[in-house]
Amino acid sequence: MLPESNRLGETQEYYFSKKLREIAELRAQGQDILNLGIGSPDLPPAPEVLEALTASARRPDTHGYQPYVGRPELRAAFARWYATFFGVELDPNRELLPLMGSKEGIMHISMSFLNAGDEVLVPDPGYPTYRSATELAGGVVRSYALSETKGWLPDLDALEAEGLDKVKIMWINYPHMPTGAAAPPEFFYRLVDFARRNRILLVNDNPYAFILTDSVQSILSVPGAREVALELSSLSKAQNMAGWRVGVLAGAEAYLKTVLRFKSNMDSGMFLPVQEAATVALGLGREWYDRLNATYRERREVAFRIMDTLGCSYRRDQVGLFVWAKCPGGIDGYGTCDRALYENQVFITPGGIFGPAGDEYVRISLCSPVPVLEEALSRLGGGARVPEQSPQP
Amino acid sequence: MLPESNRLGETQEYYFSKKLREIAELRAQGQDILNLGIGSPDLPPAPEVLEALTASARRPDTHGYQPYVGRPELRAAFARWYATFFGVELDPNRELLPLMGSKEGIMHISMSFLNAGDEVLVPDPGYPTYRSATELAGGVVRSYALSETKGWLPDLDALEAEGLDKVKIMWINYPHMPTGAAAPPEFFYRLVDFARRNRILLVNDNPYAFILTDSVQSILSVPGAREVALELSSLSKAQNMAGWRVGVLAGAEAYLKTVLRFKSNMDSGMFLPVQEAATVALGLGREWYDRLNATYRERREVAFRIMDTLGCSYRRDQVGLFVWAKCPGGIDGYGTCDRALYENQVFITPGGIFGPAGDEYVRISLCSPVPVLEEALSRLGGGARVPEQSPQP
Repeated sequence: MLPESNRLGETQEYYFSKKLREIAELRAQGQDILNLGIGSPDLPPAPEVLEALTASARRPDTHGYQPYVGRPELRAAFARWYATFFGVELDPNRELLPLMGSKEGIMHISMSFLNAGDEVLVPDPGYPTYRSATELAGGVVRSYALSETKGWLPDLDALEAEGLDKVKIMWINYPHMPTGAAAPPEFFYRLVDFARRNRILLVNDNPYAFILTDSVQSILSVPGAREVALELSSLSKAQNMAGWRVGVLAGAEAYLKTVLRFKSNMDSGMFLPVQEAATVALGLGREWYDRLNATYRERREVAFRIMDTLGCSYRRDQVGLFVWAKCPGGIDGYGTCDRALYENQVFITPGGIFGPAGDEYVRISLCSPVPVLEEALSRLGGGARVPEQSPQP
Repeated sequence: MLPESNRLGETQEYYFSKKLREIAELRAQGQDILNLGIGSPDLPPAPEVLEALTASARRPDTHGYQPYVGRPELRAAFARWYATFFGVELDPNRELLPLMGSKEGIMHISMSFLNAGDEVLVPDPGYPTYRSATELAGGVVRSYALSETKGWLPDLDALEAEGLDKVKIMWINYPHMPTGAAAPPEFFYRLVDFARRNRILLVNDNPYAFILTDSVQSILSVPGAREVALELSSLSKAQNMAGWRVGVLAGAEAYLKTVLRFKSNMDSGMFLPVQEAATVALGLGREWYDRLNATYRERREVAFRIMDTLGCSYRRDQVGLFVWAKCPGGIDGYGTCDRALYENQVFITPGGIFGPAGDEYVRISLCSPVPVLEEALSRLGGGARVPEQSPQP
């Protein structure tokens, strides 16, 4: 066999890729595993989105290659969505680049802006792909530790004191995964100022903008942000379209053109019926998001009770698609999760896979219906649910 | 604005990305451009494929993230397809990795196996993405010139005489685009032997396997090939699913695991309804391909007449989705194509975008119906069609 490239030396197969295979094997052995791991919405998209897909696929002229920049109608829909919900005006022909999921955008940006040895600020804990994309693109990861005591926000003064000459990109992700922290709006101003002063490309990965948040925020709403900031958004979470692979990169035209030079050599435009369905999904009104959040709020209560049963502590004001909690008395999250998987057939995620600062934490996804969460609660030894009121006769 | 990475220095936006935008602009100005450029099938997939997509999308449980390695049913369908049509037995769980189009596989392979400075043998003329993926991954392109006199096959002895110590990957693509050359089966044996002797990863990009060919061939049918060879296949051409983005990488498990370490950090599994539809498409029988080829054969006759009108010469035994022809008397193909576009509103592709060895050639796609091809013929000054026989009374 011929050898692999050195850049893969440090890169492992993505954690969930391995773990999902293990779960599939356990299930094949007859074990009934409850998967509370991945943030993959279990609910379907809106019916009108499915209708749009079907109607489009039935047309004979929708099956060919699509423009690398997406259909104008899709870009226009993203622009209206940004204006309506984020309060940000974007030029649909210059400041929005549709992607096949926002995850691929992380690699596109890394490949488009990093030279060998460039440093990249990556949150710890944080989404593991920031780190692997950096390494695969030849960059050097410089973790910035987040801590519960500082509201899971980076300590910008400490970073500046350490020196930032070699830093090219800073990944942020607010609402933050896995901690569920929201950034106060004024912190976005500080971040943009920090990026401008230090000539750093600031990228906000923003897939959780709508989930259980008080308001929908964009880094691009900060005046002057477009000079140094990009934002990734996604239809995976708030539109229940994780498998569909639809995202968008928003920001200044010059940056998007650079990314397009990489992307157009790497993949192609999105399947037109998916684009047409996404266009419909972007037009959904506030009531769609309100209904979705009512469901997640109900589920979160059960997830909190699971955390109580595990003896974990957590903040009730967290946002996003997960509940993040600290194991009791310095216990490491991996052990808690392994016990839950092998003894109780419940898969929850160890915080440590998001970086060492997450070692004492565990994460539960809200992407299972209440009965599944209650079954997990029961398997883990939680008490029966106390009904809030008697059933109506 | 912050600067882009050096690796993008040499990389331009993909030619068709720019050209399609120019055509869109000309059309917006009211010009009726006939696009005979891109090999994007105009015909729809089989009706049962569309039904499978629709039925799957209507289920509530098909919208989440999918495994990075695709569903077992899809991998099994690829294995049956390879066995039935290519005569190659592959282990569906180890030797097949579904991709979101085979184009992304070119970048995955380049990133997974190339170190900075590694040389890559790239055909000239050839698909431009081999070159750009090599450069983006830090490799050094070493073009191998193909010529009409040698049947558009590489001169392996000459390559060996030049020394191959630094060569890590060789891209081949038979049936070859843009020249329409098929490789004689014995040449695949020579290629595998060449790759083994020189420790080169040989990758056959094989999207045109079914189109107008006498037999469907795989490099993996050569004994011992799996040690050094990979193959990319695609549903874009022969299943009329270019926009859907479904491809596969076939080869030894060790290589596929390496590619998966890159891919799983970069994107996600394919939309399940697309996977289920692709599974149906892979089960189509020989009559599907026969009907498709009857259509392309009829179109090719008109394309030949367009080439006659342009004064170009060509081989009638060429295969694949295009007609490739040489301009008269050393005229350069770019001029021929620019005249066709700006004077006759017909877009055909200059051979030079596939490398300098294609400079004197032009390429016409067979992805337009006969009436469109005949309209192009007429605009370019071609004579009225002589009916082969009188219409029945």
